[in-house]
Amino acid sequence: MNSNSVVTVTLNPALDMTGTMGTLKAGFVNLIDSSNLNPGGKGVNVAKVLAELGAKVTVTGFLGAENQDPFAHLFELLGVNDKFIRVEGASRINVKLVEDTGRVTDLNFPGVTVDDDSLQTFENTLLELAESNDLFVIAGSLPVGVTPEHLHGWISALREKGKKVFFDSSNAALVEGLKASPWLVKPNDEELSQWAGRELSDYQSLLDAGSALADTGIQNVVISRGADGVLWCSDGEWFASKPPKMEVVSTVGAGDTLVAGMCWAELNQWTKEESLSFATALSALAVTQINVGVSDIHQVTAIQNEIRVESLSANNQAGVER
Amino acid sequence: MNSNSVVTVTLNPALDMTGTMGTLKAGFVNLIDSSNLNPGGKGVNVAKVLAELGAKVTVTGFLGAENQDPFAHLFELLGVNDKFIRVEGASRINVKLVEDTGRVTDLNFPGVTVDDDSLQTFENTLLELAESNDLFVIAGSLPVGVTPEHLHGWISALREKGKKVFFDSSNAALVEGLKASPWLVKPNDEELSQWAGRELSDYQSLLDAGSALADTGIQNVVISRGADGVLWCSDGEWFASKPPKMEVVSTVGAGDTLVAGMCWAELNQWTKEESLSFATALSALAVTQINVGVSDIHQVTAIQNEIRVESLSANNQAGVER
Repeated sequence: MNSNSVVTVTLNPALDMTGTMGTLKAGFVNLIDSSNLNPGGKGVNVAKVLAELGAKVTVTGFLGAENQDPFAHLFELLGVNDKFIRVEGASRINVKLVEDTGRVTDLNFPGVTVDDDSLQTFENTLLELAESNDLFVIAGSLPVGVTPEHLHGWISALREKGKKVFFDSSNAALVEGLKASPWLVKPNDEELSQWAGRELSDYQSLLDAGSALADTGIQNVVISRGADGVLWCSDGEWFASKPPKMEVVSTVGAGDTLVAGMCWAELNQWTKEESLSFATALSALAVTQINVGVSDIHQVTAIQNEIRVESLSANNQAGVER
Repeated sequence: MNSNSVVTVTLNPALDMTGTMGTLKAGFVNLIDSSNLNPGGKGVNVAKVLAELGAKVTVTGFLGAENQDPFAHLFELLGVNDKFIRVEGASRINVKLVEDTGRVTDLNFPGVTVDDDSLQTFENTLLELAESNDLFVIAGSLPVGVTPEHLHGWISALREKGKKVFFDSSNAALVEGLKASPWLVKPNDEELSQWAGRELSDYQSLLDAGSALADTGIQNVVISRGADGVLWCSDGEWFASKPPKMEVVSTVGAGDTLVAGMCWAELNQWTKEESLSFATALSALAVTQINVGVSDIHQVTAIQNEIRVESLSANNQAGVER
């Protein structure tokens, strides 16, 4: 096993296409002033951050053959091992139109449909990768043809082989995937609420739900709370961190960056304090930039030095500042 | 020389992305129900029709590397020889949003910027292709970095080598390109008006302007008038054709299909009557389908049989029915 290697799985990648323009006029021909194509999807974002940190990354999942180029180009740039299964059609395209006024209109195009042959090819690829990798990140939504039950099966299969699965998703995929007891999960408030089946509005209810989730057999529950910081239940023990105040440019990919940070920490076998402060700092820095990625590792270290990680013992949880 | 071969030049290809949806709401997240990616641009459309008719087609021009896949895939399907120069960035993407009500919103993204190296590579390619091809179709608009003067130079260079250049463009590129005396040009009413510098609203004024254009040294002036038919000035003689009434589904690519039809006629050395009736029929059938291409050659023949080509001698032009 390569101790520095990790596999990220993106079942439903997206090509983000951002355009700036004057005023969007429905029913007319609108000229876009400038545009930007960005290959994304949660697993791809995690891969990008991990590769830039120095991990040996293999990427897999399903890519629409019709618009795979920007992805293939990114993978080449990052030097990651591209094991994506190509399927017919185009990966979903998310068009984001930013008007001069700042108003944003999103157009979310449908993605590919995965057939049984491609499912089988993916499963074979995943099991093959399990022979030389111990860490797997499975992140994002599911394309048509991939069910939450498939996801459950893959997480279980990896788990049975002793692999550590980092899992980040939402809705039905999240709920079903959690049942397979991945090694680490990273819900935000809303996703944890989806799992709990009720709105979790305050700190204590988040801790309670997180503990309940951990009790189902999940070793690491990481709750991302944006500017409010991160809560982490590791083997039954809770830790909390809070980033310094950052100037927010874009929160896109901040959660993915947190997952990448926790994964990098695990690869490096850091202490819990080191791990959480690093991941929190990495994610905090991510919101100050438009694109996902590690622009400057020294800045990460500087922010990390400002972050205090608190250990919350069972009997003082209620007393922790929010 | 291969008597069946033709080169189509698309300097500014476009990827057409059509999405169907409910009501477009500016400032919100809109879900697209179904979508379709279609590689296009005038020269690509002409190539598609010619390849489906049976010509040996070579395609060239500039393709953005970031989204070249759908083009490469189409060229492979068509079996055309892909000599496109790949340039940095993405070819322009034209998003067409079709709402349930039929209302259409266009979002035209900017295209690539062609640098001097790519210009040189293209010129070399064009001259190399001139060694084994006699017919060239140059169609469509210009990307940033390619000037009308470049276009003029390429048409002139081909002409000096005795090549037949079919030319179809608009605005400044049209006006400058026409000065290089291509072998055949296919303006519509509006484009001929752009050249003439005044609005040509009636039949006689179109004939007069067409004759004036022919007098600048252009052997074939083909004026496309949609459902009103086609006017063709060939070596000073005017011909007119009118298609039967068609059920219009989409007029996209009808003009390109007319150019392809005239080119195919020239490859086959048909009579003027055969040429014009065929090209008119091909173009008429094109408006009954969504995509560009020859779905059924027998249908073309059936329509062609309904088309009468009139020869307009100089002294009876005014008497021809419109």
